[in-house]
Amino acid sequence: MTSIRNRWAVSARLPAHGGDKMAIGFSHLFSERARAMKASEIRELLKLTQRREIISFAGGLPNPAAFPAEKIKELAAKVLTERPAEVLQYGTTEGVRELRQTLAERMKKKGIDCTEKNILITQGSQSGIDLVSKVFLDPRNLVITGLPTYLGAANCFTSYQAQMEGIHLDDEGMPPDLLEEKLWRMHRHGRNSKMLYLVPTFQNPSGVTLSESRRKKILEIAAQHDLLIIEDDPYSDIRFEGDDVRPMKSFDTDGRVIYLGTFSKILAPGLRVAWAVGNEESIAKMTIAKQSADLCSNVLGQWIANEYITGGYVDGQVAKICQLYKHKRDLMLGAMKEHFPEGVVWTRPLGGMFTWATLPAHIDTRQMFELAIGKNVAYVVGSAFYPDGSGRNTMRLNYTYPTDEDIVEGAKRLGGVMKEEMSLPSTHAKKKMAEKLNGVLSGV
Amino acid sequence: MTSIRNRWAVSARLPAHGGDKMAIGFSHLFSERARAMKASEIRELLKLTQRREIISFAGGLPNPAAFPAEKIKELAAKVLTERPAEVLQYGTTEGVRELRQTLAERMKKKGIDCTEKNILITQGSQSGIDLVSKVFLDPRNLVITGLPTYLGAANCFTSYQAQMEGIHLDDEGMPPDLLEEKLWRMHRHGRNSKMLYLVPTFQNPSGVTLSESRRKKILEIAAQHDLLIIEDDPYSDIRFEGDDVRPMKSFDTDGRVIYLGTFSKILAPGLRVAWAVGNEESIAKMTIAKQSADLCSNVLGQWIANEYITGGYVDGQVAKICQLYKHKRDLMLGAMKEHFPEGVVWTRPLGGMFTWATLPAHIDTRQMFELAIGKNVAYVVGSAFYPDGSGRNTMRLNYTYPTDEDIVEGAKRLGGVMKEEMSLPSTHAKKKMAEKLNGVLSGV
Repeated sequence: MTSIRNRWAVSARLPAHGGDKMAIGFSHLFSERARAMKASEIRELLKLTQRREIISFAGGLPNPAAFPAEKIKELAAKVLTERPAEVLQYGTTEGVRELRQTLAERMKKKGIDCTEKNILITQGSQSGIDLVSKVFLDPRNLVITGLPTYLGAANCFTSYQAQMEGIHLDDEGMPPDLLEEKLWRMHRHGRNSKMLYLVPTFQNPSGVTLSESRRKKILEIAAQHDLLIIEDDPYSDIRFEGDDVRPMKSFDTDGRVIYLGTFSKILAPGLRVAWAVGNEESIAKMTIAKQSADLCSNVLGQWIANEYITGGYVDGQVAKICQLYKHKRDLMLGAMKEHFPEGVVWTRPLGGMFTWATLPAHIDTRQMFELAIGKNVAYVVGSAFYPDGSGRNTMRLNYTYPTDEDIVEGAKRLGGVMKEEMSLPSTHAKKKMAEKLNGVLSGV
Repeated sequence: MTSIRNRWAVSARLPAHGGDKMAIGFSHLFSERARAMKASEIRELLKLTQRREIISFAGGLPNPAAFPAEKIKELAAKVLTERPAEVLQYGTTEGVRELRQTLAERMKKKGIDCTEKNILITQGSQSGIDLVSKVFLDPRNLVITGLPTYLGAANCFTSYQAQMEGIHLDDEGMPPDLLEEKLWRMHRHGRNSKMLYLVPTFQNPSGVTLSESRRKKILEIAAQHDLLIIEDDPYSDIRFEGDDVRPMKSFDTDGRVIYLGTFSKILAPGLRVAWAVGNEESIAKMTIAKQSADLCSNVLGQWIANEYITGGYVDGQVAKICQLYKHKRDLMLGAMKEHFPEGVVWTRPLGGMFTWATLPAHIDTRQMFELAIGKNVAYVVGSAFYPDGSGRNTMRLNYTYPTDEDIVEGAKRLGGVMKEEMSLPSTHAKKKMAEKLNGVLSGV
């Protein structure tokens, strides 16, 4: 018997079974969506930042000092003693009922009217984004995101072969007028979007927060254009100053907002416990999708999370985290002010984990990255957060993970790198070219 | 401004935002794949089996008496004391390196030559099936499964809009000649399959094991037809008698087998820790898919699992589980023999969690289900495991979860139900009709 065919493979004949010790390739069997999934360049760059001598602002990690490890150990022992048969068994796909009830109460305090039936427990918010995508996105569907936007969400939309259109953010997040203009312009060209993805509070990567008036306006626009909204909200509890802004979901009477909350920033990401809040119809369909994706979320983590809230530990812990991170943010902003050269601007986040720096327009932070690595300091290249590939003069800086000493020293090193890059002859040449072009364009 | 459009919805106009207290529906925005995902009838039936007075053989659950809860509590405390910053932090998408190294060693003992680079940690095997599907299946691709086959896998393939073709199993699993015939017949009609899904050892639902000679033969056929094989192996460690059969992956020199192992049956399913073994190319692509699906698996569970193996606890625990389950299997088979009527046959599994009963051809176990529930006994309707909807006279029976008393009493009740159903006038009529038809067909 001979091989029937060898779809899309270079060689016309497959090696006979049992012969070659080398594994043959199977990429010719990859799905279309898998072909669209690429190992991101950013991920490769991030690997460079792991070297011990490098001070990295590139991470997106909570500080381990903020993990209530002793409490988690105590709660793990408690639930494993009190209900081992439940904690170690398969759980329901929806998630542990007690946790969903606890979360419904917590959501009510944030102005979100819901019951356990509106809640699905997921393995991290990323899994929530994945399930919403699976349930709502067909290939070539359009998702509107911020520019910049959270990289993990963009990668997920891509994995479902969806396309993205971005709206440039300002200091109050997404400008509703730009969103509306974009939607109408697309509509005129026969292109309609299905979904709007937002991190309204202390956005990853920019750190900016969408104002309450904009939240309401964007909900109105979404209703007009029949858009679902994913409100990804991992950071709102980590507020250092200013008043809480109510979640968009709390203004949503249609059920068009799917809210994603998580224990990753207020407890510990390694437990992988998060939740989605939506209308019953969407949650029911996401539950079916989750059943074939992973059957259920890890039950031990769910019970630890439930005890953590019902035991009344969350507020004290969040206060402790906020204190730690506010200190680090202040240190970071102070060091940036001291060491970053003129012409560089950055956001002043009121909470969350990131600040966002914008360099002069002619600077390419991707090009500058190798210089930075050479000086043992790292950041995330800003264009990674732009699905359209723009944002070349920007960078994301995380201040929650590095030590205090590293924040100060790292900002100093990075400032030096910026100065060097901004003074390079090639950069000068580009800058002049840019000015010339601007002049030409202004003349038109 | 008015609503642009209301795609596929019945009503031509959306309720204005802020008006209606009732949530409006968003099913018109569902993706094509979500429309194909249905809440399974079986799941609804299974809800009926939760009533306290019902003795259920319908579950697929390990017995909680088999969970090493004290040991898990001890190991959780250990890892949370020794390395809290790691256990509670985000992990790498590939999974904890130490666990992957430990598993590579364990796999080698089963004859599978691999390193940590061939291993991806997943949140349960279901998530492994999902990632393989995501990476390899396009809509309308064909997957070959057993008839019957594991329901969760079939639902997953459906969620990627793949189609299935089934091969009827016998007492030694999938007959290679039937597989080969099916593949050539399909090929003649221009239909080629990409993937073969198998639970070769103590199959769920049938309990049968694929013989070693068939494993080798099927690998040859797969090489001829350029098929990937998913070898789903949750049960092989739970062997009561007879010799181990080597995993198909151990005979795979091409890298065409993706092996799925799990801690769910040898430790605890609530931890959601499993692993996939494949060639580096497939594992790398599955890792990218996993990154956008859930970033990483829960880290606490991974460290507990690693300590469980490296601490040398697994063999003793598996022996304990086997002893418990063998006892229950023997009790079950004895009670079935005593109480099931003539004309009913069933498999005698050498391990795993299920036996599979086949009733006379004219009996419909779906119809009989309500009678059974009325008599407070439950099973899973066999046709649930047949993607082609056949197998109407079969049922899956789980013997690991019920108590000893319930096994005996449940088999007695179920035997009574079978006798009653087999003696019903309507059944008689159908039986006669079937005989008559058979006569006609024989006469042709």
